[in-house]
Amino acid sequence: MTGDRGTALYAQSGGMTAVINATAAGVIDAARRHGRRITRLLAARNGILGVLREELYDLTRLDPAQAKALRHTPGGAFGSCRFKLKDAATDAAHYERFFAVCAAWNVRWFFYNGGNDSADTCLKLARAAEARGYPLACVGLPKTIDNDLALTDFCPGFGSVAKYAAVSILEAGFDVEAMAESSTKVFVLEVMGRHAGWIAAASGLAARRDGEPPHLILFPERPFDAEGFLARVRETVERRGYCTVVASEGIKTPDGQFLAESGERDAFGHRQLGGVALRLCTLIRDRLGYKYHYAIADYLQRSARHLASKVDAEVAYQTGVVGVRYALDGRNAVMPAVKRLARDPYRYELWPASLADVANAERTMPMDFISADGYGITRAARDYLAPLIQGEAHPPYREGLPEYLRLRLRLLKAKLPPYAVG
Amino acid sequence: MTGDRGTALYAQSGGMTAVINATAAGVIDAARRHGRRITRLLAARNGILGVLREELYDLTRLDPAQAKALRHTPGGAFGSCRFKLKDAATDAAHYERFFAVCAAWNVRWFFYNGGNDSADTCLKLARAAEARGYPLACVGLPKTIDNDLALTDFCPGFGSVAKYAAVSILEAGFDVEAMAESSTKVFVLEVMGRHAGWIAAASGLAARRDGEPPHLILFPERPFDAEGFLARVRETVERRGYCTVVASEGIKTPDGQFLAESGERDAFGHRQLGGVALRLCTLIRDRLGYKYHYAIADYLQRSARHLASKVDAEVAYQTGVVGVRYALDGRNAVMPAVKRLARDPYRYELWPASLADVANAERTMPMDFISADGYGITRAARDYLAPLIQGEAHPPYREGLPEYLRLRLRLLKAKLPPYAVG
Repeated sequence: MTGDRGTALYAQSGGMTAVINATAAGVIDAARRHGRRITRLLAARNGILGVLREELYDLTRLDPAQAKALRHTPGGAFGSCRFKLKDAATDAAHYERFFAVCAAWNVRWFFYNGGNDSADTCLKLARAAEARGYPLACVGLPKTIDNDLALTDFCPGFGSVAKYAAVSILEAGFDVEAMAESSTKVFVLEVMGRHAGWIAAASGLAARRDGEPPHLILFPERPFDAEGFLARVRETVERRGYCTVVASEGIKTPDGQFLAESGERDAFGHRQLGGVALRLCTLIRDRLGYKYHYAIADYLQRSARHLASKVDAEVAYQTGVVGVRYALDGRNAVMPAVKRLARDPYRYELWPASLADVANAERTMPMDFISADGYGITRAARDYLAPLIQGEAHPPYREGLPEYLRLRLRLLKAKLPPYAVG
Repeated sequence: MTGDRGTALYAQSGGMTAVINATAAGVIDAARRHGRRITRLLAARNGILGVLREELYDLTRLDPAQAKALRHTPGGAFGSCRFKLKDAATDAAHYERFFAVCAAWNVRWFFYNGGNDSADTCLKLARAAEARGYPLACVGLPKTIDNDLALTDFCPGFGSVAKYAAVSILEAGFDVEAMAESSTKVFVLEVMGRHAGWIAAASGLAARRDGEPPHLILFPERPFDAEGFLARVRETVERRGYCTVVASEGIKTPDGQFLAESGERDAFGHRQLGGVALRLCTLIRDRLGYKYHYAIADYLQRSARHLASKVDAEVAYQTGVVGVRYALDGRNAVMPAVKRLARDPYRYELWPASLADVANAERTMPMDFISADGYGITRAARDYLAPLIQGEAHPPYREGLPEYLRLRLRLLKAKLPPYAVG
């Protein structure tokens, strides 16, 4: 059994979600229950960077009311990072430092809460620990609105952004429908989804009957055909009086270029996208002459804890709880993955997927989720997506606003010399 | 007393809100209670255009469950229009037609649910009715997210968009704060507000302590000073690690030009704006080099019934109820206006403001609502705004989505020859 007693270390990585702090709350609650073995619970500030910098918070005696409030607070309570650890040969100094920090604080269990890149980092650390004989169980905790982690029915965070996308186009659809006769005829909602159309697909749940918004969904999986799209917009306006569109930020032209390139790149070398909605609307205005409006949901979609899916929030919490159990059971380089047992009502169980099978394996959206015409979702997509947005998890409100917790923790005094990274 | 028995006619106009249908529900419920006098309740399709076209729905025997569902359904159930009636001399044929339709259906009470332009139309019809001796009480029902109607403490619709703006920047702020160290440092949320910064100001309610989002608010009331703004963004990032900005779509350069002009104009000759957020972010990137993200709330902010303010939804409903009472009491050319009796908890009463005093009088935001530095709100603003976002009015949900009502009504068979307008 890895580490009979010692310190557990938790960190958050990558883009935020509405429910990543629920996973943190699960870790905190489980660590408290296993206080005889987990004698100390630390959180790193800003993910792996905070470990390397030895910027640590002590959560051991965190007020249980605060853990409870974290469960319904969006963003990442301890800060996140976009930083990908290279292999042990290239980033040798980082690995050296990582284990020096672990040794200084007697860290026996490491929990890394993130997406693909974080699973990869977590796996590398697990292997490095084995290689040097350092007793460390590394557990990945799944989190990403992109829903692109392998082996899990869905990724915590996705259920809530899915619900946000569906509710948003449902509501805006009522507005546009009322305005269309003498004003706005076309509305475009731009949602996240660089490589996969999961979020855009989820917006399709808003349409319960034929002809309801969203009328057209644009997926990165399908090359953008301007003429075909314009024909469908026109046809929809002529038939329904208005047209609502949900567009993935990552839609590409037939020659493989992003429709909207901002030229920016993030720390992983990914391009920063934006402006798809305006591009589409300009095209519609120039070619069809319709008055348009567009919304860009951006961070609102992934931070909208007020509209979280109950299923999503619950699974996020449980991955934290179960992740701690895996670690205490001596499992290493695993991630609690969701196995779907039943669709309606949704039932699931968590199982320990190997990080080696998860890291850097991108789960794509099944092509049979996209309808034959390329602008809608199929029955199979609905069957998969519908359970993930079920249930409301309203946060408590005070004076008209959700009562979210901004933790004001002090960093622990460092034991090692400073280390510059990032 | 105007019209002892007869038909009441209701119509919706201008931009939609999350709660205009609550006002419709108030009219429907009150009309049912006064069924001995209001023998028929009609709604026009697409506002005044539907009256002129004789496109009418019969709500007299609407299922009470449907009226109840309307109370929590966004958009405009009967369709809206952007159409401003000119004076009786210029648009003589329209007036002639309006009263022909009223006579054909024995309309004795007319309710026009809209903003400034609609109050103006309603007043013109009231005067025209008097001039020709047609017994018609015209009652304006207030509705606008712009909060620019005179004489009323606030406009139904504004309380909910105010809540949306505050919750959105609150939530996105948590996200950006977590990302800032190695990724996004600046986040801009663009909100509506062509001439007045009411909505942007309301976002300021999210900050309960100094230094909390939103850090900077850009108001149309203050000329945009690029250098001053950039200095504040830099200062905020350096001090807080990140910076959140809420920008009104209508902010102007010192020479009075909209910062983002799309060149479009709507039916009233207003410019259609868009792109302020991108302009600001491009400026920030070029001059300060920070990674940014931006969201454009657009229609989402005014249709987000799932996040409606309870105070707002309640007042919207009551204006409908009380508007019917005014009409039956023989009051003409009035609008139920909100008088604030107490701030905490909010108490109000409705009183019959004269449409002559409301129509085309634009209520501006008091200058003492903007802090001395021009980027925040004052105590006075908070005292005014805070009560308006109080309380939640969660809609019922079914299968993970709000259960909104899409009325599927058939138009009544016309009694008059067709009439082309709009």
